[in-house]
Amino acid sequence: MRCRLPTLILLLQGALLAMFIVFVVYDEHADAAAQSNTTKPMDNRLYSVFPLFKDIHAMLFVGLGLLLAFMKLYGFSAMAFNFLVGNFGIQWALLVQGFFYHYWDGKIHLGMENVLNAEFASVVVLISAGAVLGKTSPVQLLLMGILEIPLFVVNEWLLTTYLKVVDVSGTIAIHVFACYFGLGVTQILYRPHLKSGHPKEITTSMTDLLSLLGTFFLWIYWPSFNAVLARPGDAQHRAVLNTFIALSSCTMTTFALSSLMNKKGKLNLVHVQNATLAGGVAVGAAADMMITPAGAFGLGCLGAMVCVFGFQYLTPFLSQKLHLQDQCGIHNLHGLPGIVGTVGSIVAILCSSEAIYGSSLYEIFPDRAAEHDIPAITSTVVAETERSPTDQALYQAAGFGVTFAISLVGGYVTGLLLKMPFLGQPPDEFCFDDEPYFKVSESQKVTRYP
Amino acid sequence: MRCRLPTLILLLQGALLAMFIVFVVYDEHADAAAQSNTTKPMDNRLYSVFPLFKDIHAMLFVGLGLLLAFMKLYGFSAMAFNFLVGNFGIQWALLVQGFFYHYWDGKIHLGMENVLNAEFASVVVLISAGAVLGKTSPVQLLLMGILEIPLFVVNEWLLTTYLKVVDVSGTIAIHVFACYFGLGVTQILYRPHLKSGHPKEITTSMTDLLSLLGTFFLWIYWPSFNAVLARPGDAQHRAVLNTFIALSSCTMTTFALSSLMNKKGKLNLVHVQNATLAGGVAVGAAADMMITPAGAFGLGCLGAMVCVFGFQYLTPFLSQKLHLQDQCGIHNLHGLPGIVGTVGSIVAILCSSEAIYGSSLYEIFPDRAAEHDIPAITSTVVAETERSPTDQALYQAAGFGVTFAISLVGGYVTGLLLKMPFLGQPPDEFCFDDEPYFKVSESQKVTRYP
Amino acid sequence: MRCRLPTLILLLQGALLAMFIVFVVYDEHADAAAQSNTTKPMDNRLYSVFPLFKDIHAMLFVGLGLLLAFMKLYGFSAMAFNFLVGNFGIQWALLVQGFFYHYWDGKIHLGMENVLNAEFASVVVLISAGAVLGKTSPVQLLLMGILEIPLFVVNEWLLTTYLKVVDVSGTIAIHVFACYFGLGVTQILYRPHLKSGHPKEITTSMTDLLSLLGTFFLWIYWPSFNAVLARPGDAQHRAVLNTFIALSSCTMTTFALSSLMNKKGKLNLVHVQNATLAGGVAVGAAADMMITPAGAFGLGCLGAMVCVFGFQYLTPFLSQKLHLQDQCGIHNLHGLPGIVGTVGSIVAILCSSEAIYGSSLYEIFPDRAAEHDIPAITSTVVAETERSPTDQALYQAAGFGVTFAISLVGGYVTGLLLKMPFLGQPPDEFCFDDEPYFKVSESQKVTRYP
Repeated sequence: MRCRLPTLILLLQGALLAMFIVFVVYDEHADAAAQSNTTKPMDNRLYSVFPLFKDIHAMLFVGLGLLLAFMKLYGFSAMAFNFLVGNFGIQWALLVQGFFYHYWDGKIHLGMENVLNAEFASVVVLISAGAVLGKTSPVQLLLMGILEIPLFVVNEWLLTTYLKVVDVSGTIAIHVFACYFGLGVTQILYRPHLKSGHPKEITTSMTDLLSLLGTFFLWIYWPSFNAVLARPGDAQHRAVLNTFIALSSCTMTTFALSSLMNKKGKLNLVHVQNATLAGGVAVGAAADMMITPAGAFGLGCLGAMVCVFGFQYLTPFLSQKLHLQDQCGIHNLHGLPGIVGTVGSIVAILCSSEAIYGSSLYEIFPDRAAEHDIPAITSTVVAETERSPTDQALYQAAGFGVTFAISLVGGYVTGLLLKMPFLGQPPDEFCFDDEPYFKVSESQKVTRYP
Repeated sequence: MRCRLPTLILLLQGALLAMFIVFVVYDEHADAAAQSNTTKPMDNRLYSVFPLFKDIHAMLFVGLGLLLAFMKLYGFSAMAFNFLVGNFGIQWALLVQGFFYHYWDGKIHLGMENVLNAEFASVVVLISAGAVLGKTSPVQLLLMGILEIPLFVVNEWLLTTYLKVVDVSGTIAIHVFACYFGLGVTQILYRPHLKSGHPKEITTSMTDLLSLLGTFFLWIYWPSFNAVLARPGDAQHRAVLNTFIALSSCTMTTFALSSLMNKKGKLNLVHVQNATLAGGVAVGAAADMMITPAGAFGLGCLGAMVCVFGFQYLTPFLSQKLHLQDQCGIHNLHGLPGIVGTVGSIVAILCSSEAIYGSSLYEIFPDRAAEHDIPAITSTVVAETERSPTDQALYQAAGFGVTFAISLVGGYVTGLLLKMPFLGQPPDEFCFDDEPYFKVSESQKVTRYP
Repeated sequence: MRCRLPTLILLLQGALLAMFIVFVVYDEHADAAAQSNTTKPMDNRLYSVFPLFKDIHAMLFVGLGLLLAFMKLYGFSAMAFNFLVGNFGIQWALLVQGFFYHYWDGKIHLGMENVLNAEFASVVVLISAGAVLGKTSPVQLLLMGILEIPLFVVNEWLLTTYLKVVDVSGTIAIHVFACYFGLGVTQILYRPHLKSGHPKEITTSMTDLLSLLGTFFLWIYWPSFNAVLARPGDAQHRAVLNTFIALSSCTMTTFALSSLMNKKGKLNLVHVQNATLAGGVAVGAAADMMITPAGAFGLGCLGAMVCVFGFQYLTPFLSQKLHLQDQCGIHNLHGLPGIVGTVGSIVAILCSSEAIYGSSLYEIFPDRAAEHDIPAITSTVVAETERSPTDQALYQAAGFGVTFAISLVGGYVTGLLLKMPFLGQPPDEFCFDDEPYFKVSESQKVTRYP
């Protein structure tokens, strides 16, 4: 226990620092020497990335951190390890994605856009970690991040470069991947003695309120998450608008269904904390498409439906039959709405036409450009393939399948590695407990000085 | 109890979805087909609306949600019903305002600007609901929203179209309206047995801290609220600046007066949580005018004064004499500072002149344009009437009077409808209690899986 | 007790209002009459200042407020007095900085940029107040603000105007100044009986969680803090990027070192709450320079190191040997990382050259411009002195020394004044206790109406 965590972190930091020294330089938007007399400061990419980046930042650490802090005895660990693993994930993703996408002349070229993409990679690890919340040591979580980040990047690269899946906010690449990776890990880390719960697995009014507050932060900034990588202009406008509508209809639907599920008509806070966000996942892959406001509304309702039903029926089933102990219900918030979102994108693609999109069609679906003459002024994309809507729809399905397979297998392998004995996995009695990791007591002396 | 809430919500969602399908299309900033080769993406209206929209979003759900969560046993309901009713209000307002302002060719044209205006409508319901916090079921609150939103839109339409009241941040249209509507409702819903308090009407240190945190979020983003609808440029700059100054002076004054009110000089948290925001209401109607920094400072001080005096003397008086049980003191935070704000705007108008405003005068007060030649380049507004400052001042007063009358009568009627027996109004003993609505206990088992 | 606080506040508000009436007018970006037909609204300075201003706003009141609220019995005071003193500091700084920098034609010209700078001044007082948290009355804190703000402005003026220190985010001018001023005050206010702690100096899980949440808000918006005063374009891009990298590496390092410090390898929440932010201070003075991503990474690690070591070894030592009771450990979070940051800026300056910076060199280091021909188009700065890198490095060190001396002496003098008997300093038994200042009890009746 004593030295495992600091040793691992210091080794990682040393290795990362060495890699930074050898490989990382500023990109042309951050490099002073790359500016010329004709560079306009306000054209710097910072100004298109940073306003939305901050929102995603807040989602990761404040929103998700609070959402996870629902357990009475595990609040510090939930928030602090989310902070630790999130930061490691970003640093590691800066290097892995850097070698994939920003490497030339022997250097990784780094700007805020890279950091934004690294946060998207990092969020994948944090979602997956939700499946094993309270049952894994920080050493295990960091190891999970070491393995999951490169696999995520490879899968993302397959989807964007080979399959050319259209998925503006990562419904498939992020949510589906994170979900099935996490489920793979937790299935391997199955704890039979926790089958009927754990005495420390308790919440209080206050922790549940903080968790709900986390939901609000995620909910508020989810439109930014879905829109940040959309094409500027009308596409980004639609991504914000559709996501907002989906979240809003999803929230209403959640209250209705949660109440219906209970014999006395009472609301389940777990539903309110989670299912109200499912619309953001469900609308994600098609968020920038012309799905109509009603389409966004409907996707939001569907997201809430599958999420509430998942918590109510599927999670207990998976837990008992498949040994899937999905602690935070990531399958309900990311997996099932991810499936809805994939199907939604397929339907949206099958319904797409030049009549609806105008010349923008070839910017949102660049691979259909070859079918027609592209007005040179509106498109800088050179089409490499010719795809009909049906083709693109099949590629979407293929993207889902590839992601499902890679993430689940990756999760299993990672789970097996996490079972290695020297990683500090807490014994059953210390699950859901800050005690092994933090100096705490219900009423502790301030330790600022003795 | 069992089925009322889900049935109502599902009916509402079904009706809203049907209306969205039939009537709602993207506006020209969100519609792909409306873009031409010459459209510049960065001119999309998203970029002027979204940065401030996010702040108002955070005010509604995080700020107001936390502010209302001050009761020990009613935290979930306060935050969750604020979330539920807020979302319903936005969806409903998108349609109602859509038919009023964005309807042509048989369609409502929807963009983020509509959502922004719908949030302003929704906040009206949430403010009114503060008067009956803890004493109404979610079914009642939704019904209140169904009725209040159209009335708000009609009143707003009267003020802007007929009376041409100048009220950049809705001091009259939003705060005064919401206040007297809520007071009307609560007067009808009077509960004689709660005259001397209720045993469940208790706070804890932690809930009071969270409520204060909600105050901070409201305080931080209030300048965005007051400025978002101001004309870009110097008017928006003044709206931010004046609001900030008013909030700051209001905060200082609150601490002084709250301490003065107490025999031992102790501060009352209720004052700190509420009166520190009164400056934002008081400066609102004139926020974009040339009221001078000192004027904003003074309005902030006045806002704090009336708010603290209201909590200390007027609320108890109204409660005992007029059967006005104003649970959150919305009269002190929205009504009285709203009156200050109306008077402030009248004074500011009486002092306005071309010497002070330059040619901007006719942009802030478009109805005075006819008196002079308008430099064509700076104004796209065609004046329909000729108004002297005194005329405009009288119209401001008329606008207040109309709003007061419509909202109060509307509140009475709504209150009577809310007394209908099948709406699940909680009996006295279940006021201020999450128990009827949520599955909770002080130390509950996590229910994520059995 | 009874009347001291309200009397002081009302006197201050009266004086400030009088000064506002006599001296303060809108600047050319907020003044309607200053706009001409050719003024483009979107060129208004509001749009470059406000997006980052909001973040700093959130840091001051939400982030710092929560961070300070870690004590079970002193949460209201910590958050509310931070709010009170912060607001007074801003108003007071608007006047003091106004007379220094924005005064001509007998008027202070006020715009949002002034408010931004006033927030920077105000944060200095709030940092210093951390050293005496729980041991000073609000009257004492306000008096401290009255004295510290002008001294800060004078020191800042010396640094920027005479010494021409390069310090984009105020590592020296803000953090070092605030730290040693606060340490001076607390040394004078030494309380011998609190040498071995205080029975009320306790935290709870919930207050510690809220404090950690405050850390997250500070962490998230720190890049905005460091970048807001940087030159737009690549320099601002670097300031954001370097700060982010430093904070991220600093966070990882903190977890490692905190665990290493404990015999059982457990994490100390105080470290996680504080040292994870030290990277933002350490990278600050050089944040916009070409320090390379690896340099930012290293500065972050160093910041965490000195901060954790400071909490572990230096604070107890200073407390026992020098009678320095540094309640929040501001020496560890602002002083020591401030030294690292000063040294970092010196090294970065010694390594700077035209080869690395291109022509931007003379914008970041305007005083080196005279050595070369300046391309007229890129620089509007007229160089007054000729400085080699070594010269500039020596000026950086001189700036640190001047700041250290002025702030420490200022702190001593202020401490002596704060010892005056009629300022309501709480006796030892009422330290760390809301009781003297707020009407509270663990389960209090709501006092909204009787």
